[in-house]
Order: sequence, then structure tokens, then C-alpha cells
Amino acid sequence: MIKIALDAMGGDFGPEVTVLGAMAAVKELSNVEITLYGKEEEILKYLTNNERIKVVHCESVIDMGETDPIRAIRKEKDSSLVKALESVKNNENQAIVSAGATQALVVGAHLIIRRMKNMHRVALAPIMPTLDKRGLILLDVGANVELRPEHLYELAVYATIVAKLYLKRENPKVGLLNIGSEKGKGREVDNEVYELLENSELINFIGNVEGVDIFTTEADIVVTDGFSGNLVLKTIEGTAKAMGEMLKEEIAASLGGKIGYLFMKKNLRNFKKRLSSSEVGGTLVYGLNSPVIKAHGSSDARAIYNAIRQAVLFTEANIIENVNKELEKIVQK
Amino acid sequence: MIKIALDAMGGDFGPEVTVLGAMAAVKELSNVEITLYGKEEEILKYLTNNERIKVVHCESVIDMGETDPIRAIRKEKDSSLVKALESVKNNENQAIVSAGATQALVVGAHLIIRRMKNMHRVALAPIMPTLDKRGLILLDVGANVELRPEHLYELAVYATIVAKLYLKRENPKVGLLNIGSEKGKGREVDNEVYELLENSELINFIGNVEGVDIFTTEADIVVTDGFSGNLVLKTIEGTAKAMGEMLKEEIAASLGGKIGYLFMKKNLRNFKKRLSSSEVGGTLVYGLNSPVIKAHGSSDARAIYNAIRQAVLFTEANIIENVNKELEKIVQK
Repeated sequence: MIKIALDAMGGDFGPEVTVLGAMAAVKELSNVEITLYGKEEEILKYLTNNERIKVVHCESVIDMGETDPIRAIRKEKDSSLVKALESVKNNENQAIVSAGATQALVVGAHLIIRRMKNMHRVALAPIMPTLDKRGLILLDVGANVELRPEHLYELAVYATIVAKLYLKRENPKVGLLNIGSEKGKGREVDNEVYELLENSELINFIGNVEGVDIFTTEADIVVTDGFSGNLVLKTIEGTAKAMGEMLKEEIAASLGGKIGYLFMKKNLRNFKKRLSSSEVGGTLVYGLNSPVIKAHGSSDARAIYNAIRQAVLFTEANIIENVNKELEKIVQK
Repeated sequence: MIKIALDAMGGDFGPEVTVLGAMAAVKELSNVEITLYGKEEEILKYLTNNERIKVVHCESVIDMGETDPIRAIRKEKDSSLVKALESVKNNENQAIVSAGATQALVVGAHLIIRRMKNMHRVALAPIMPTLDKRGLILLDVGANVELRPEHLYELAVYATIVAKLYLKRENPKVGLLNIGSEKGKGREVDNEVYELLENSELINFIGNVEGVDIFTTEADIVVTDGFSGNLVLKTIEGTAKAMGEMLKEEIAASLGGKIGYLFMKKNLRNFKKRLSSSEVGGTLVYGLNSPVIKAHGSSDARAIYNAIRQAVLFTEANIIENVNKELEKIVQK
């Protein structure tokens, strides 16, 4: 049995979707046991099946718009997020899933679950859609606005293990986000990262990847600092939204467009779905002693189910243990 | 008469499009005189009308893929780019347009036309499409990988004058590209820029702008360092391309899609046009003693015409003189 802690109050829709997501997970995954953390009376409104699902009542909730996450984590000991994190720390559960405020989850996991011994930073690492539907890992997208080269290197090693064991890529290719394809492009920090990755035996480095190639690169992993990664992630989201609007406007601009629309309604709906998935599933938080999955704030029950599934696969694959082994090789040098 | 120097050899298609663009410009703009710099025999193949068009023969061409632009500018004295730049420096022409290698143009303009007295950096500042078709200025997109806050501030002042006199915005709004909307987000450098812009009387600062809002922000100008700006520019381009491919795939996936396509062919063509215009017209190079316009490498004759038109409007509006006056106010403080 894999035991997952689920922050039932996190996300824009709270228990209404988290409870349904949990019930879907126990139905489809025979080896999962879920504990829901949150307001019992609200959870019980939606919980119609409690096979392999437990409920732990929590008095409070950390707000989605929390601006001082460190204070919130330290003060709100009875919140659903803190109690769920504590359960992982105490080995009652093996991994945590939350759709709550990102910074509160990252800070809370940092303070309670703690960083792995040989990791110096945590990172947010979503899986981005690619044109060939294979997907790639982009990191960091916001946990660290700036990153020292040696810390980014550790994160690249972590991502390599995830790509191998979780995405099943044979010899995962790592690219460095940059503003030119040739070596020597970018800032001083990018050049230092380039050197480190190029000379590492633990990394299959393929050089720089530009923003224009983010959907078509052969890289399985693209690394950068949290400021740059967040810019790219958000720009993709903004561009996709704007493109969707533009397409709507152009179709509505003539009768031919409107008639054509009737024929290709379904096709356009599929297109919209591909546009809107700026990330595939939940975002993995790298660097902690247990798996931490951040589900989208706007997650529906299906997205919560997917995030739970990710947590299960992540735990089964022993990612963290394997990363620890790899990092020992760096430390021993 | 406004006198424009045109690097006839620059761009992916050379004289075949630059000459046609120049002829279109003299036809549509009664106050422009153009000098074409390049290989005479190639230019004359396409030049069927030489009213207000002169040709200056140049022996060599700086390659589009030039990797050492400083060396190229210093050595290739007889290249079309260097001769065109020299003509502006010597006041034979008032502005230059080139679709050649970006870095060669920036470095060449820097070395030959020289920086304005009170500007400490040059910047590449394209006009980006917005959902409402108004357009906004994004800078820097690659001239400086890193920028000191006070230099970014000077560039914001420059952009404000361009938005007023060239884009005809009344009190242009300036936003700072960042990874959160609240003050205090981002790197140390972003916070320093925020302070400077917020406290300036020369700038109408509206705070942070995130990547997700780049098509919908109310800002007329979005400022950042050249690394971040280039990432955003290229990510928009890559996303738009990928979205176009995805739409094609989805439409081709069913008969309904294919029939619908026949009805909305024209609409989809218009959509594609909006997708592909990752920039509006040429990119202005800020900070030099004369107007410098970088046309897209893949420019067709229409795009060359548009870049010439930009150079004319830019010159007519006395942008540089007006920027000088504004910058004096900073210096006097």
C-alpha cells in the first residue's frame, strides 16, 4: 500500500473536487490509501465511499492568497496543509498532494518535510506539453528567483532520475534554457551552468535550448533559474490564451467562418484542450525528503486524481532514494 | 526630404526584396530619398525605377551568421552595412534600415554612429502585438544580457518618448516584466528597477507585468533585461508556431474538420497571419545618435517598406532630440 496525504481544502474548489478525486484514485489504483486533511463536515458532504480513505479533521485552512507563507506555516499548526505535511514527516504517509497556495506548500514542505541531505535547493518542476505529446521537464519555474550553478546542477541530476524512472526515458537529454544556441551565449551564470553540465558524467547534456524551441526540442529536461523558468511558463500560458481569443475573433468575422465552425466544433474543442494544458498533471517539488506534488489551483476532480496518481508512481519508483545515490557521487568527488 | 540608408544586401533574401521595398517606399512616401548600399550588379537586376533612389556599390557583405561582429565591422570596411552606417555618421543620411545580422547591426551602429551622450546602453525594442491590436513596446530583447537599474531607467525614458511621439499614446504606461504582480517580487535587480521607476517623474509606472498578461496588459511599454526579454519574445514565437501546428493536426484529424476547413480557409489564413507576426514591423535600436531600424531577417518587400516607413516616422518625430531633452532632466538631478 502507498499512503498519500491529500490537503482536502487546497485549490479553488476545495473538498468538492479533492474528495471526488480521492474516491476516483482508490477506485482506479488498487495500491493506494488516502488520508484527507480538512474540515470534516465539509469533506463528509462529498465522501460517499470510504474504502481506503481516512479523514483527519483540521480546524483551519491556509488561504490561496496567503502573502506571508512562512508566518502562516509556523502559526497555523491546525491547518489542513500543516497537518498533512506533519503526517508525511512522521511517516504516517509517504507523499503529499495539495492544490493550495504554491509558496505555502513549498515553504511548508521545506520547514516540515525538510530538504534532502545533499540537495541545497528545492525546485518546482512541471512537465510541459511538447508538439509530439512526449512532454518535457522544465525547472525551476519559481521556487528560486536566482540559482547558483552547482545548485542547478544538483536539480538537473534530480530531473534526470525523474525522467528515467518516472517518464521512462532511456538516457534523458538535458538542455539549458538560453538566448542563443551556441556555447557562450547568455549571462555569466548560464555559462557556468553550461560548463558544469557539459563536463558531468551524470548528465546527458545537449547544449542550449531557446524559447522558440520549447515545444519541439529533443531535450527531455530544460533547466534554468526560477525567474526565467517562470517567465517562460507564464508566457506560454498567456500566448496560448491570446491565440485562442484571436482564433475565436477570426472565426466570428465572417459567415464562412461560422459555418465552418459547425463542422469542426469537436476539432476546435480538442485544440482548446491542448492549448489550455500549459502543464501536464501536477508540478513536482524536487529536493525534499518525501514526494510533494503541487496540483493546479484550478484543478477539477480528474486533475486531483492525476496528481494522486503521480504521487503514487513517484513513490513506487523510489525517486528520492535513487537521487540520493546519484548525489553521493558528486559529494564524493 | 528624409534621407534613409538601406543595407540592400541584408536579410535572408537580399536585393530581391530590399530593392522592391525601397521602390514601394518612394512610391508611397513622397518625402523619402533612399540610398541602397550593396553589389551594384545585383541591385540593378531589380531596380526598375530610380526616382529618389541612389545606389552605392559595396564590394562585400557581412554574413547573416557572423559570429564575431566586432571583428567583421572593423575589418569589412567595404561591406554594405559599414558603408550604410558611415553615411549616417557623416550626415549623408538620417537613418539606417537593415535586415542583416542583428548583432552586427547593433555593434556596428555602436562603433560607427555611436551612443547618445546621456544613454549608457543601447537596446532592441520591438513592438509586440496585443490582443486589442494596439501593440506595446518590449525592451530589451537581447542587446544587453544584463542591465543595471539606472540604465534600464534611461531606456524606459527613451521608450516613453517613442510611445508618445511615434505610437501617439498620451501618457504612456510603463510596466516591469516580473514573475508576480505585487511589489517585492522577482530578483534584487527587479526590485531596484521597480523603485527607480516608481519614484520617477518622467515615467508613468503601473507596476509589474507577468508573462501571462503580455497580450492583454494595459501597459504601453514593458521593460526588462535583454536575457528575459529575449526569452519572452522567443517563447511567444515558439508557442505561436506550436499552436499553429496543433490546430492543423486537430483539423486534419476528422472529416468534419476537413469540411469545416473549406468554409473557414480565409479566417484561418487571417489567424495564421496574426500568429506569425511575433513583432510589428522592424525592431528599433534605442540609444544611438541616429535612428536605426532592424528589419526581420525573413522580411519580404512589404516588411522592408514598413521598416523604411518606420525610419521616416521616427526621424520626422525628432525622437532622439526629444529623448536628449528628457535625459538632461535626469542628469541635472
